[in-house]
Amino acid sequence: MKNILICGAGRSATDLIDYMLKHAEEHDWNVTVGDISVEAAATKIDGHPRGKAVFFDSNDEEIMQRYIKDADIVISVLPPGMHAAVAKVAVEYNAHVVTASYASSEMLELHEKARNRGLTLLNELGADPGIDHMNGMRSVDRIKAKGGELLAFTSFCGSLVTPESNDNPWGYKFTWSPMNVITAGDGGARYYQNNQLRCVPYHRLFADPHEVNLPGFGKFEAYANRDSLPYRKKYHLEDIPTMIRATLRFPGYCEGWNAMIQLGLTANNYRIEGSENLTYRQWISSYLPRGNSDTLEEKLAQCINTAQKSELFQRILWTDLLTERPITRVNGTPAEILLDLLLDKWEFKQGDTDMLVFYDRQEYKIGDQFYEHLSYMVTKGQDHAHTAISRTVGLPAAIGAKLILNGEIKSRGVVFPLLKEVYEPILNELDALGIGFTSHDNRIEKSQLLYS
Amino acid sequence: MKNILICGAGRSATDLIDYMLKHAEEHDWNVTVGDISVEAAATKIDGHPRGKAVFFDSNDEEIMQRYIKDADIVISVLPPGMHAAVAKVAVEYNAHVVTASYASSEMLELHEKARNRGLTLLNELGADPGIDHMNGMRSVDRIKAKGGELLAFTSFCGSLVTPESNDNPWGYKFTWSPMNVITAGDGGARYYQNNQLRCVPYHRLFADPHEVNLPGFGKFEAYANRDSLPYRKKYHLEDIPTMIRATLRFPGYCEGWNAMIQLGLTANNYRIEGSENLTYRQWISSYLPRGNSDTLEEKLAQCINTAQKSELFQRILWTDLLTERPITRVNGTPAEILLDLLLDKWEFKQGDTDMLVFYDRQEYKIGDQFYEHLSYMVTKGQDHAHTAISRTVGLPAAIGAKLILNGEIKSRGVVFPLLKEVYEPILNELDALGIGFTSHDNRIEKSQLLYS
Repeated sequence: MKNILICGAGRSATDLIDYMLKHAEEHDWNVTVGDISVEAAATKIDGHPRGKAVFFDSNDEEIMQRYIKDADIVISVLPPGMHAAVAKVAVEYNAHVVTASYASSEMLELHEKARNRGLTLLNELGADPGIDHMNGMRSVDRIKAKGGELLAFTSFCGSLVTPESNDNPWGYKFTWSPMNVITAGDGGARYYQNNQLRCVPYHRLFADPHEVNLPGFGKFEAYANRDSLPYRKKYHLEDIPTMIRATLRFPGYCEGWNAMIQLGLTANNYRIEGSENLTYRQWISSYLPRGNSDTLEEKLAQCINTAQKSELFQRILWTDLLTERPITRVNGTPAEILLDLLLDKWEFKQGDTDMLVFYDRQEYKIGDQFYEHLSYMVTKGQDHAHTAISRTVGLPAAIGAKLILNGEIKSRGVVFPLLKEVYEPILNELDALGIGFTSHDNRIEKSQLLYS
Repeated sequence: MKNILICGAGRSATDLIDYMLKHAEEHDWNVTVGDISVEAAATKIDGHPRGKAVFFDSNDEEIMQRYIKDADIVISVLPPGMHAAVAKVAVEYNAHVVTASYASSEMLELHEKARNRGLTLLNELGADPGIDHMNGMRSVDRIKAKGGELLAFTSFCGSLVTPESNDNPWGYKFTWSPMNVITAGDGGARYYQNNQLRCVPYHRLFADPHEVNLPGFGKFEAYANRDSLPYRKKYHLEDIPTMIRATLRFPGYCEGWNAMIQLGLTANNYRIEGSENLTYRQWISSYLPRGNSDTLEEKLAQCINTAQKSELFQRILWTDLLTERPITRVNGTPAEILLDLLLDKWEFKQGDTDMLVFYDRQEYKIGDQFYEHLSYMVTKGQDHAHTAISRTVGLPAAIGAKLILNGEIKSRGVVFPLLKEVYEPILNELDALGIGFTSHDNRIEKSQLLYS
């Protein structure tokens, strides 16, 4: 018998919990789900005899110890900042750990101790980071295995609404952490393009999106995703000339979001005293040049360099930014004030479905011949609870946990899904569950290389 | 006998220490100067029989207690983040506190306890904040005393080199904390203008400076200084239509610095992996559009929207940003990398002198008649050690400490120099020391109001 503790019963835990319960009998697992809302945990367990819902709070050391000490493995789907605290206790009580988030420096510090104790701390095992890593590394290993020399690695991923649920001019709803969407990219982006370092400051990040055409799914646009520089080393491609990771949106989004940034509405590093006394129209007016001759609409159009009848302007209008709607946030940051408005306008509603889009393209050569390797996947949510996010974040983590418990993942310490023993069985099982990549290699002319 | 502890013996402590030692015999003071460099402290004391140099580290609780427990008053000229730790120990051991920095929330939390113990924690008693507050509040009180209704409060302050030491195209040298200059304004700025809230995002803060003409000293330019909103309340001007605080520079600086911001070189929220392997020319190239047809100089000029023969472009060239000078900073943030270059180019050299410039203008009316109240001061440093910064930061703090010790400042708890019992004797003594304001009131026409 093995004891599994799942920390967190939020939106992205649905398919993870379902998977663990579904396989509990077969593997003789007991599954405890802990959340600050016991009801939320109980609802997801839905009376399954192998499941138990408990109150769990990662700020309460005693509660953490109580449930972690009996666990063989802990799967944390708490907010990213809380994984390290959970992992620390887990290592103390000899439990393995799985998370779907980037490993923090506190997590990395646990490496030695976990390895010495024969424990695996498997991180970045969700959708992005997670599936992107696994498919990327598999592509690299396959290209290398046939003697290819990699010239470019580009990886695109987006969490979007399905075209069927796409009913607003931004082509976007909050399928994922809303505040992260508001402040996305505020540290700018870095990548390598044809052996040149490229740095993109935040105020230019959304200004010039890259177009991506996905066979069968049409056009998307992409903005560079934070820091691609460390991925040369991570993917064992130290000298690859081009390394770009990017985030996908439906066309038009980046132009609209760029306007929000240019206006200054996404800043999260200062508070506006008395914001609760303003309407959105008064607030937006405070960012525009003064002068009484022009209407607010005229000044806004001028400030974002567009015409009032443009799609861009209509997109801004649609958000209600120019209405006399009162701001409710007390002494809010601009990002918080904007968030409150968009939480309403971009709500992922009952009946809406989401989708995850992955699109990778590698360029390589064998001898004098050039090739591209394409791999892509679009996964749609089944319903409002079993979203694509829940499936693509939760299932890799679930399968990873199973592989550790069954002894099939043998690496110890802090581990990433860039190891073949991790990515191969997980991608294979995801494929069998209908979350599989389509891939093909094409011979191309040297002139068709995009990044040389 | 009274024991005075001065924490910090850095550049801005020179005149503070001199003042306390000069008046030590007369008031029966013992002056202990603590610094992580005992030599620095000893040098400033220069063998004075009333002075003692000790090792002091605000990260070491035991050391702090050792020296604070015997002190009647602690004057902290440590970096701003360290005042609260010092003040906490001081309140515990019944010592008053004086600082020249903005009061942090941790400092404000000490208010009740300090008041109950009969202690004064006098903050913001330097140049800016400090002299600006005192002169501003005095102006307000004077205008109100003669029945004036205030319409606009504008306050400008700058730490600059003297015209005699101004030998570079930026008109700037580091007379003050260099990193604060690099990241200045990165939270944008807020103020009220004619009853309208104005928010300026960082990437527009330096784009449109305000011109200030100082009688006898020529033209300066100003960018808005952080958050002016709370100053309506602080100066008891809750309903004043215009409230603007701003920072002064010599003409041309803002246009140049705006280019640095537009390029993205001032960001301090991410690190560039491997920055130590680049030259400045390679680094700057990473921010410019690709394409081999144009030279880097052409691309740069285009990116900052200027001609290569413009003064702006020459100002950028002068920094050596376009040279193959190697970057030494390992995994640096852009701000750090730029700082390293400018530390050299903008060095405040032996033989250079600095100056502090204050310029305030209030608009008010009495009955149907409109007036402006102007007050301004330019203080130049005497030499490289007795700088204008050291005099204008150190002397208010020194006089404030004396007034507390002599029982002339009676307010307890966290106190600011906006009280008449604080600002009046300090401004009077500063005036006698040659740091005095020139001020006059002029009748003006309604059409001459700048901010209506």
